Amino acid sequence: MAILRIEGAEMVTMAGDVRVESGWTLEAVDGAITYVGPAEELQSAGEPDELIDAAGRLLLPGLVNALVNAHTHAAMTLFRGAADDMPLTPWLEEKIWPVEARMGEDDVYWGTMLGIAEMLLAGVTCFNDMYHLPRVGTRAAMDAGMRMCPSGVLLGILPTADDMLADAIEFTREFAARDEGATAHCIHPMMAPHAPYTCPRELLEKVIAAAQDLDVPIHIHLAETHDNVEWSLDNYGKRPAQAMDEVGLFEAKVLAAHCVYLDYRDIEIVIERGVGVAHCPGSNLKLASGMAPADALFKAGARIGLGTDGCGSNNNLDLLEEARLAALIAKVREDDPTAVPAEAALRMATLGGARAVYLEDTIGSLQPGKRCDCILVDLQAPHLQPHHNLVSHMIYSARASDVCTTIVNGAVLMRDRELATIDLDETVAKAAESAARLFG
Amino acid sequence: MAILRIEGAEMVTMAGDVRVESGWTLEAVDGAITYVGPAEELQSAGEPDELIDAAGRLLLPGLVNALVNAHTHAAMTLFRGAADDMPLTPWLEEKIWPVEARMGEDDVYWGTMLGIAEMLLAGVTCFNDMYHLPRVGTRAAMDAGMRMCPSGVLLGILPTADDMLADAIEFTREFAARDEGATAHCIHPMMAPHAPYTCPRELLEKVIAAAQDLDVPIHIHLAETHDNVEWSLDNYGKRPAQAMDEVGLFEAKVLAAHCVYLDYRDIEIVIERGVGVAHCPGSNLKLASGMAPADALFKAGARIGLGTDGCGSNNNLDLLEEARLAALIAKVREDDPTAVPAEAALRMATLGGARAVYLEDTIGSLQPGKRCDCILVDLQAPHLQPHHNLVSHMIYSARASDVCTTIVNGAVLMRDRELATIDLDETVAKAAESAARLFG
Repeated sequence: MAILRIEGAEMVTMAGDVRVESGWTLEAVDGAITYVGPAEELQSAGEPDELIDAAGRLLLPGLVNALVNAHTHAAMTLFRGAADDMPLTPWLEEKIWPVEARMGEDDVYWGTMLGIAEMLLAGVTCFNDMYHLPRVGTRAAMDAGMRMCPSGVLLGILPTADDMLADAIEFTREFAARDEGATAHCIHPMMAPHAPYTCPRELLEKVIAAAQDLDVPIHIHLAETHDNVEWSLDNYGKRPAQAMDEVGLFEAKVLAAHCVYLDYRDIEIVIERGVGVAHCPGSNLKLASGMAPADALFKAGARIGLGTDGCGSNNNLDLLEEARLAALIAKVREDDPTAVPAEAALRMATLGGARAVYLEDTIGSLQPGKRCDCILVDLQAPHLQPHHNLVSHMIYSARASDVCTTIVNGAVLMRDRELATIDLDETVAKAAESAARLFG
Repeated sequence: MAILRIEGAEMVTMAGDVRVESGWTLEAVDGAITYVGPAEELQSAGEPDELIDAAGRLLLPGLVNALVNAHTHAAMTLFRGAADDMPLTPWLEEKIWPVEARMGEDDVYWGTMLGIAEMLLAGVTCFNDMYHLPRVGTRAAMDAGMRMCPSGVLLGILPTADDMLADAIEFTREFAARDEGATAHCIHPMMAPHAPYTCPRELLEKVIAAAQDLDVPIHIHLAETHDNVEWSLDNYGKRPAQAMDEVGLFEAKVLAAHCVYLDYRDIEIVIERGVGVAHCPGSNLKLASGMAPADALFKAGARIGLGTDGCGSNNNLDLLEEARLAALIAKVREDDPTAVPAEAALRMATLGGARAVYLEDTIGSLQPGKRCDCILVDLQAPHLQPHHNLVSHMIYSARASDVCTTIVNGAVLMRDRELATIDLDETVAKAAESAARLFG
């Protein structure tokens, strides 16, 4: 029995209203939260194996529990800065896909590990990843101890689509079988048809059946660009969300990434069907895709979390930056400075992300019974002074570098900005080698 | 004679095209840059008093030379997080102005010092500040060794406007007289009528005459909101830029903050008259003011720099974040992913800011004859790997916390994240006292 206790923090649990509790204690046993509350009411399980004094630090229900990165392609750290300031289609066709075709296992492993290092240093405790060679990326996450929702990308337009589907089913079954209630380990597989415009209806129907059979969510790109809408109108006679509803996609659990172009009926479908949404404001801005209706989705109660997307289009995996962008751009999109206030952005970054990937019973808030995924934020830097409102500070003022401790499943993976499970020098060197080979 | 030499950096000088030079050397004598180029061609002035080994670090023409914060109200660090997610007018009338009416010298001094600490830690070497009690803020900058363009705010709607103007003239004359070619010290005064809608035409005409007489620029808010445009149409029969052109404002040197609402003719006026523009994307988003036509202004050759605005509406003084926002939102504003590419954003953050505040002969690029205002950026963190494109990394991936050294006028004011001239503990404590008193 391993006991972790965090004492003396300013704490935002994200269970219920968003508010700051002073000097509360959190205790976890074998990675499961067993107590959250005032220090004097703690009935401890025993002497802690690990005791963290968090005075002057913030333990937040979201940052504390799970900065869930709800949509990314972690191995694309290798692409950071390789092609910027370009439109989506030539960017994919000329810069991304030709290089991806050359990527091997080492490239995916070290690219993913570099991304995990960056995320742990930014307080991200869980990431939802869609990429080729998912066993390799998953191995990196398991080696690092990071929580991950892996999925191999299915491109229905390729002649090998049926083989890819069979392999995806095998991969999913392997990890779903080891899931044991989603608590025994930190790998939560999904199935990932890339997008409606790259996956014929017949393939989508096979994926829906398999995902329902295996009881895993589907991870898909949806309504990312205006072109996607045009394509859907041309091919289904309906907008993307309505077309996918017709196909039956939302009979399964679905995490839809981007959702930039949703009209009123599309939003109704997202709510009625309980569709998870990964809002990716940075990527959507950088590729000039547009601004998603995040304020409307949040107010309607959607399962909406935040994603960084991959480093090819972001160019970082900094989820706090996404939370700030979500809060800022909603205000100009809606012409309303009260749109997506700090509390809403923090919820999207934490419990919202957990709901988006269907892990809200496992992570996303600091509550007994959930796994102990949390972060501590140093509050001493001048840009976080004075302390009028710590929730506001997390969204509008804090930086990833203020995160001083990152804990996943009760294990301290980053402490005082040092990674505990990753050899950073080796990772940087291997990633540089891969990048040089791929782009050389 | 004090010699500073920086060796072995990756360097972007911002003199001419934006490109990275490897392993160049910079030398400065008594704060003036005397050499920038290959190490082997250096004809040194002698043994350096300070030698900085910058291997693995980036010295950039903008970040290196001057992250010019072209528009802020530094003492408003005291307001950080005190009132968020509100519209501009009630925010000013209910939250900001009542507190500002209670602010004394200590509040302005420590609020400004807290802002300077934050800026130096974020690589900002110069800030253009409009605030009450400008002698006090200026004293903080001089105590810290920071470069500053101070101005006291003139509110023509107050009965004391004439006294304020007389005092502003006296303040400006005092520091302009000490300027000795803008190189001997780091204080560059301006005059600051708050905005067209708070300053009657008669007052503006007096300020224009005084600014021309003293040869200092005018710092003013212009066309920040849609309401500003309505007000101008109602009161001048013209849009704000055209109204101010009619008044003769642009006969003086002018730094116009915000400029969100400029039509084609307004932009022509900005270009023809050589008006400086402080683009403040973060503040404009947070208050739902809008998105300024930064791409058009930059392409037309405007003197366009970046400003954070005050912490009441941002909520930080992180100019790298503004540069990233400038690059990102231009793309959705113009529906064009090539709008404000990384090179343009970096130029706005450095030489553009220097041009906006009419200091381009003094700072803004690493060139012999300019003052030695520069920063070093650590390139080792995982979020800056691999090194495909360091200019892209500065805009799309880097954080303020990656700045490891900040140099103003040849003096190292921040080294390895430690401030050399500011007692940070005292500053944080005094600012917290002020905040508690003002908001208590």
